[in-house]
Amino acid sequence: MVPNKINADLQKERDSCSFNVTELTNLIDGGIEKTAERKKREEMALKEGIHIDEVPSVYLSHKEKYELAIKKACLLFKMIRRLQEEENAGMENYMAVLGGNLGSAILGDGSPLTLHYVMFIPTLMGQGTVEQQAHWIGRAFNLDIIGTYAQTELGHGTFVRGLETTATYDPSTKEFILHSPTLTAYKWWPGGLAHTANYCIVMAQLHTKGKCHGMHAFIVQLRDEETHMPLPGIKVGEIGAKLGMNGTNNGFLGFDQVRIPRDYMLMKNAKVLEDGTYVTAPSSKLAYGTMMFVRVMLVNDMCNYMAKAVTIATRYSAVRRQSQPKPNEPEPQILDYVTQQHKLMIGIASVHAFRTCADWLWQMYNNVTAELEAGDMERLPELHALSCCLKAVSTSDAAQCVERCRLSCGGHGYMLSSNLPLTYGLVTAACTYEGENTVMLLQTARYLVKAWQQAAGGQTLPPTVSYLREVVAGRRSPPFDNTIEGIVAGFYRVAAGKIGACVAQIEKRQKTGMCYEDAWNMTSVQLTSASEAHCRAIILSTYYKEIERQSNLVSPELATVLRQLVDLYVVYWALQCIGDLLRFTSISERDIDQLQGWYEDLLTRLRPNAVGLVDAFDIRDEILNSALGAYDGNAYERLMAEAMKSPLNKEPVNQSFHQYLKPLMQGKL
Amino acid sequence: MVPNKINADLQKERDSCSFNVTELTNLIDGGIEKTAERKKREEMALKEGIHIDEVPSVYLSHKEKYELAIKKACLLFKMIRRLQEEENAGMENYMAVLGGNLGSAILGDGSPLTLHYVMFIPTLMGQGTVEQQAHWIGRAFNLDIIGTYAQTELGHGTFVRGLETTATYDPSTKEFILHSPTLTAYKWWPGGLAHTANYCIVMAQLHTKGKCHGMHAFIVQLRDEETHMPLPGIKVGEIGAKLGMNGTNNGFLGFDQVRIPRDYMLMKNAKVLEDGTYVTAPSSKLAYGTMMFVRVMLVNDMCNYMAKAVTIATRYSAVRRQSQPKPNEPEPQILDYVTQQHKLMIGIASVHAFRTCADWLWQMYNNVTAELEAGDMERLPELHALSCCLKAVSTSDAAQCVERCRLSCGGHGYMLSSNLPLTYGLVTAACTYEGENTVMLLQTARYLVKAWQQAAGGQTLPPTVSYLREVVAGRRSPPFDNTIEGIVAGFYRVAAGKIGACVAQIEKRQKTGMCYEDAWNMTSVQLTSASEAHCRAIILSTYYKEIERQSNLVSPELATVLRQLVDLYVVYWALQCIGDLLRFTSISERDIDQLQGWYEDLLTRLRPNAVGLVDAFDIRDEILNSALGAYDGNAYERLMAEAMKSPLNKEPVNQSFHQYLKPLMQGKL
Repeated sequence: MVPNKINADLQKERDSCSFNVTELTNLIDGGIEKTAERKKREEMALKEGIHIDEVPSVYLSHKEKYELAIKKACLLFKMIRRLQEEENAGMENYMAVLGGNLGSAILGDGSPLTLHYVMFIPTLMGQGTVEQQAHWIGRAFNLDIIGTYAQTELGHGTFVRGLETTATYDPSTKEFILHSPTLTAYKWWPGGLAHTANYCIVMAQLHTKGKCHGMHAFIVQLRDEETHMPLPGIKVGEIGAKLGMNGTNNGFLGFDQVRIPRDYMLMKNAKVLEDGTYVTAPSSKLAYGTMMFVRVMLVNDMCNYMAKAVTIATRYSAVRRQSQPKPNEPEPQILDYVTQQHKLMIGIASVHAFRTCADWLWQMYNNVTAELEAGDMERLPELHALSCCLKAVSTSDAAQCVERCRLSCGGHGYMLSSNLPLTYGLVTAACTYEGENTVMLLQTARYLVKAWQQAAGGQTLPPTVSYLREVVAGRRSPPFDNTIEGIVAGFYRVAAGKIGACVAQIEKRQKTGMCYEDAWNMTSVQLTSASEAHCRAIILSTYYKEIERQSNLVSPELATVLRQLVDLYVVYWALQCIGDLLRFTSISERDIDQLQGWYEDLLTRLRPNAVGLVDAFDIRDEILNSALGAYDGNAYERLMAEAMKSPLNKEPVNQSFHQYLKPLMQGKL
Repeated sequence: MVPNKINADLQKERDSCSFNVTELTNLIDGGIEKTAERKKREEMALKEGIHIDEVPSVYLSHKEKYELAIKKACLLFKMIRRLQEEENAGMENYMAVLGGNLGSAILGDGSPLTLHYVMFIPTLMGQGTVEQQAHWIGRAFNLDIIGTYAQTELGHGTFVRGLETTATYDPSTKEFILHSPTLTAYKWWPGGLAHTANYCIVMAQLHTKGKCHGMHAFIVQLRDEETHMPLPGIKVGEIGAKLGMNGTNNGFLGFDQVRIPRDYMLMKNAKVLEDGTYVTAPSSKLAYGTMMFVRVMLVNDMCNYMAKAVTIATRYSAVRRQSQPKPNEPEPQILDYVTQQHKLMIGIASVHAFRTCADWLWQMYNNVTAELEAGDMERLPELHALSCCLKAVSTSDAAQCVERCRLSCGGHGYMLSSNLPLTYGLVTAACTYEGENTVMLLQTARYLVKAWQQAAGGQTLPPTVSYLREVVAGRRSPPFDNTIEGIVAGFYRVAAGKIGACVAQIEKRQKTGMCYEDAWNMTSVQLTSASEAHCRAIILSTYYKEIERQSNLVSPELATVLRQLVDLYVVYWALQCIGDLLRFTSISERDIDQLQGWYEDLLTRLRPNAVGLVDAFDIRDEILNSALGAYDGNAYERLMAEAMKSPLNKEPVNQSFHQYLKPLMQGKL
């Protein structure tokens, strides 16, 4: 039904692309070899066909979706196990198949086994003693047991200290008693917890000798290893249908006085001795590590989601024709409408911008981790502040980008076969998990206010906030310079100006008698805005600097396009933030007019390379999984082919006609 | 499981509300009697229990969802039929039960019978001759037949002239031959088309005597009335799963030379005589009527969706407690965080603002329709321009409002049992249907550019664009006045400034040799922005004026709150559009500081009435259908109760354990 040839409009786009698409793909992957490795991995993982569903999962019931997710996850792990043995491949290959676009294409709408690898095993490694690691990690790696990680409760999320689950030490039996004192103490959300995992790491308030020592990690067996029945005192089940990720089997968990051996507490850091004596951890800041690692990885995920969405929407926009602005001419490709270019090009540029920032953050993370191991914690707060605001801004930008792409495909973007709704479901979830975005921005704001005060006190500042110094010192802005560098400098002025205004506002409110906490709260809308401005300045400058460097290493044709994308990204954000630039820099009305013209000119220049730019993301059809976005551009044929897979289309008359519709029409219902 | 008492935090909120909630409810409904009628209607419609699902539909398969939707729709129509007979109620009551929040609460995620009433019958009434009406409308009203309306095609949406389906007259048999020449000519999207309707109004290109006369409406029988089997030459089925509205049974439809009698063409306006002679319609502008009516209704729907979302999020925010900003104090309600108030209060105000605009547009629609019937078309273009931009801005604001509310509920907003994801699915669809939003904004822009040119030519302007006169005449802005009235005036200056800039830009581009169409396209991003600015100015001024009027008719307590909401709405938008105000008015940095302080102050003043304000929307629990938002505030108990309804929770061990998980763990898969 779907023709075996490339749509003519798409072919024409590809023929006129001004740069070498493969060169850009290699650049994105990090080199020719990396591209080859990725392609080999994809080929290997996809040839098994685990990703192919007899009936697309969107037509299944909630329960069937879970059953399909288990089947796929188990087959995938079986395959990985085989590959490990055959090829003697390391953990890296393992994670590469599981993570990113490839894993999610095979696993569909989330997997119930993900937390086993992403949280259960890493926590055992990070927080278990050597003996505990010896005991548990082998079993977990072999999949003799399947675990998950339970922290969030029905009534408690981001504020970890508020968690209610207790683990009370009983020295008479040398056991901990896990208990959920209230309904709101029930664990709620962990993936795989509902019907999949038989073990779980549980975060609970540790009580011993009549004193509470805060959150600690405990291993709890949930289900019998043979029968999978929940053990006595364990109340476990699933939390119900969600906007997305309906394959993840998110669960709830309540304890009714469940006893576990003393050595089921993970004791690499803090300990409880046999008599119940609590021994403190050497440093509590180490726990930051995992959280920050996950946030760094998240920024990369966001690039993958945006790349998918913008590939789908751009290819479809080259195929779709609509309206007739000029009489007697054919309907243009919708990609020729400047409003459509406005929706798509920023998406393409955003993928590159955030990819650059993710790499940069990853390097910083590695440096700081190395320093940490040498006992140097100096840059930890800076890294923490950066990871918070980048988490918030990247997830929020990605969600908007995916939704903009979906809407840009008109009605067909609303079809699940476009794969845009499912992608949105995954990306918008990231705005909430791993730290709710408003909370994240306020964490960064707290750091920025402190940095401002340090600067005011004459202290030196860490690199990423050193720009505050000029403004704190009351130095006048240099005249606004309407170039990319000038705009980036302008964004730093905006960030500094907003942070300064917040500090002044808080102080002013304190002078009227408000306590600091209330003054902070009253100023918090402005604080989130300052935090975002800081983040935007960093994204713009990181992206600009990195592409300046890369442009010298690639062909002149590619360098031109890369620079155009940076320009587009910077000018787009300048136009979005005109109010801020007007307030905090000397930008003029003439500058603004120029920016607008510059922006429209960039859209025109990038237009012929739009398809080449998304082709360079090199997302295979099996991974893109979209009727609208497939490489061959046969969007209409594929939409129809996908529709025909609906079980409703397997019979000409549905039974409900006889049961309800006909009786209604004949007045006999 | 859910306690039979009001959550203490919610009760406290209600006790401290400063105004009479019922008074506001009556004002919203349009009077005490209207509230009573609505409540009676709700009671009557809900007591049948059609809205109650044994298993919530979110757990069903796609096919089961359709079957449930048919069951519900048929039972609802049976009930309505009975009520009509019992109470002798008119059409109005009928539509009231079907439409708005009540209908969608009963019908769930869209209904396959909606288009029968919303499009099939109205089109017969509007475009059929008296004879055709006599023949068809009775059968349709009695539900002897079920119809739908097919216009959009797989390859063609907003641009109606591009539709491909043909209806060719054959004078030898006095029949029309309907045909789909290509795959892209297939009708695609109509609700109920897939497996439900047995008749359909089809829009097709009329060909007679070798000439094409453009789009006309034809009645086509799709399925046998007894067996429901598709008739020969009819290719019909469903288009597949979607982001939302999975009960609507959207279908595709292809014709292979299907013949219908000549009098199946709706001939109230244009006609084809027996010999094939085409007789033109008296006026083609009449067709605008229905489209505009639907867009006016849409603005009202948006208010309903926003009211639901903000009720859910506000009540939950009063119940949810999180974090500990002050040591030794309990965790505050999240409604006490100013960032949370920032997300919710604008939602509450938006409901009132758009409700006011919907009423105003409705009055204007009625006036213009009356004038039209008297042959006066003068205000038609103005109404059309208004309905376009209000459609775009209201649906886009509503989608953002619902999504903001969902995100403000953290992880629990991601649960389908919150009802926020489903609401988003419905509201975001409206950004695309009935005219894609970017296209809508550009339609309004075309009118605004013309109005500008009229003003420049010294012609008088219709009321809603008369503000252009001052700016066209080059009169200087008066100094910015930082009051509500001053801000509203500022928004008009912004709109005029942006329209003027677009006109100048287009002219400048034309002078460089670009044709008008290309100059328009290059300027189209700015044109959409100008169109939105025009719409914002109208919304702000309409809302402000109407509340000024209403405030004199209500108690002083209520008047205070109503005015605070207007102030909040206006100041919020001023802060959102600071860049525009800086460019086009003389607003100062001092004004901006004042606005920010004013905004924060308004949030503080409105905070104690937040719950009262959403209570006043008076949305019954059955209609709200949300575990998070129920009137009693027992959010956690309801979340758990909803989770327990999941079929996965009906058995402790899922079969997939034995089939896949256990074999995997034992190395035997």
